[in-house]
Amino acid sequence: MQGVLDIPEELREIQSVVVDGLARVSDVFDEQLRSELPPVDTMCAHIERYRGKMLRPTLVLLCNAAARGSEDLSAVTDRAPIVCGAVSEMVHMATLVHDDVLDEAEIRRRGRTINAMKGNETSVILGDYLIASAYELCSSLESPVPSRIVGRASAVMCTGELLQLHNRNNLSLDEPTYFEILKRKTAALIGAACELGARSALGFDREHDPIAEALRGFGLDLGIAFQIQDDVLDLTGTLEEVGKSVGKDLEKGKLTYPIIHHLAHADDETRERSLIDVRAIGEGDSSDVASLIERIEGTASLEATRACAVSYVESAKSRLSAIPDGVAKPMLTLLADAVVTRSH
Amino acid sequence: MQGVLDIPEELREIQSVVVDGLARVSDVFDEQLRSELPPVDTMCAHIERYRGKMLRPTLVLLCNAAARGSEDLSAVTDRAPIVCGAVSEMVHMATLVHDDVLDEAEIRRRGRTINAMKGNETSVILGDYLIASAYELCSSLESPVPSRIVGRASAVMCTGELLQLHNRNNLSLDEPTYFEILKRKTAALIGAACELGARSALGFDREHDPIAEALRGFGLDLGIAFQIQDDVLDLTGTLEEVGKSVGKDLEKGKLTYPIIHHLAHADDETRERSLIDVRAIGEGDSSDVASLIERIEGTASLEATRACAVSYVESAKSRLSAIPDGVAKPMLTLLADAVVTRSH
Repeated sequence: MQGVLDIPEELREIQSVVVDGLARVSDVFDEQLRSELPPVDTMCAHIERYRGKMLRPTLVLLCNAAARGSEDLSAVTDRAPIVCGAVSEMVHMATLVHDDVLDEAEIRRRGRTINAMKGNETSVILGDYLIASAYELCSSLESPVPSRIVGRASAVMCTGELLQLHNRNNLSLDEPTYFEILKRKTAALIGAACELGARSALGFDREHDPIAEALRGFGLDLGIAFQIQDDVLDLTGTLEEVGKSVGKDLEKGKLTYPIIHHLAHADDETRERSLIDVRAIGEGDSSDVASLIERIEGTASLEATRACAVSYVESAKSRLSAIPDGVAKPMLTLLADAVVTRSH
Repeated sequence: MQGVLDIPEELREIQSVVVDGLARVSDVFDEQLRSELPPVDTMCAHIERYRGKMLRPTLVLLCNAAARGSEDLSAVTDRAPIVCGAVSEMVHMATLVHDDVLDEAEIRRRGRTINAMKGNETSVILGDYLIASAYELCSSLESPVPSRIVGRASAVMCTGELLQLHNRNNLSLDEPTYFEILKRKTAALIGAACELGARSALGFDREHDPIAEALRGFGLDLGIAFQIQDDVLDLTGTLEEVGKSVGKDLEKGKLTYPIIHHLAHADDETRERSLIDVRAIGEGDSSDVASLIERIEGTASLEATRACAVSYVESAKSRLSAIPDGVAKPMLTLLADAVVTRSH
């Protein structure tokens, strides 16, 4: 999942309006992970390399402002949205760290040398430390509601990962299962970030608030669109450097939308040839990537995938009609549009 | 850490008095992990093999009764101690599952075959699912206090694991660092379980309650004694089957109390020979285990270790003077004594 949801250049402007809030999120984040034990601090320094562009805290802050209909994005004075921003980033980073834990099969295939960083065990414990710290921080808020939202989203994320692992190398993975994985694995936490932002403005005790639900729905749609676009980039990145690098998803035995669409729309002979290529890539032989992608283009599957992502972006934007006007609302629209135009 | 804190035969009687509560804990535990996704349920079935003897839920229930000074241990009607029991067991099981994630170096050394269970990645995600489910369940309580206690204890546990990993193969590990690791890695969660039990009886809003603090202290001391006894068993188990099985701690490059004591009390020549053996075992060569243990016995280090464990048990029991009389208090005393008499 690494690299997913990095904010592209064109969104720097959006982040600049919440820059004060993000700086406070960053401080809370660092403060929470600080330890009186020097070796723990040293090992935590390795977490830095997973640091992304803070998309989730940005969404928390924007949704907080959007729910308030605020005209001034720097006016976050409450601690709750800052804490929720740091928590959502910490949970996300934990998944990135744990994604780096390799299966034995992969370790053998890649023939990695013994890692100076102590490898898998360090990744596991550092990820656990991030998760535990996120929960500790979240529960420092007065209301148990944010902890419920974060706990629920984290558990759903794990079920998405389990479902994906269960379907590894399943070459007949269908579209509904693909979407189920993606909603759980990626969209749940984005939706939670938006909900946390909204409810930290509206009051955590207010249940079933239409604004909070609209923003949560916005986040879920956005998360789905993001992941679909990521699946496209995983393949088209391959196209640009065929032979050098191969789609990581296929390499890991993960079927994504473009492949599922292609296999469903190709004629029997083409499908058979593509299945042979997909299997070979999953086994570490990427020599036929170029011809696979050619065949995928033959069924217009990349276009279909992009169209699917666009439809989720449109759905996300339509949710914003329930949100009061203010300076954050157009930023959320901009952010949604950028999801499908980003190229990295 | 697997196997630590299993309740020995002689404690079955203690558990039998909280059997109704434990059955409810078990139901809540299973219910929380149940998924509407069949593959998730299938993978969760593998968690069963980590299921221990529910020491932590037993402590939650006993401390709940102890804080109430109750004469009837089956009289738990509140949901809070049941939920806290299930949460503490879930967090503990997550650590067992994650302990199974192996470093590349170890995989290579042990030459494990590719695992039908998908190996490391499954362990990581299943452990994460347990942690997330524990937090979700804990936050279902009205008060954010139990989430704070559990979040804090989990984070402290991780720092203990990080400190241990940092000191792997550190042959000059000193006693204070050893105790720091052990307090964090093992005692923190036991202390939290006792505190959760007490505060679920006394009311989570009551801060700095002397009964809750006494029971938390009891749990911390108990946890330390348990882990020290486990370190003894790790070595004496080796003695029984020399050549067949080697102390897991030494194999993983972990120095424990008996070794630290031995190295501190041996003459220079003996220490040098022992250091050579310790290094060899850490590298997978256990041919000299028997002579190492003979030398450890030469410095009376096993006796010293047992005496150290006993002193923590005495300290734990002395904490109980602050606790109202009732049926649970003598059970806690019995449980503390059993820690140092157990042989498995």
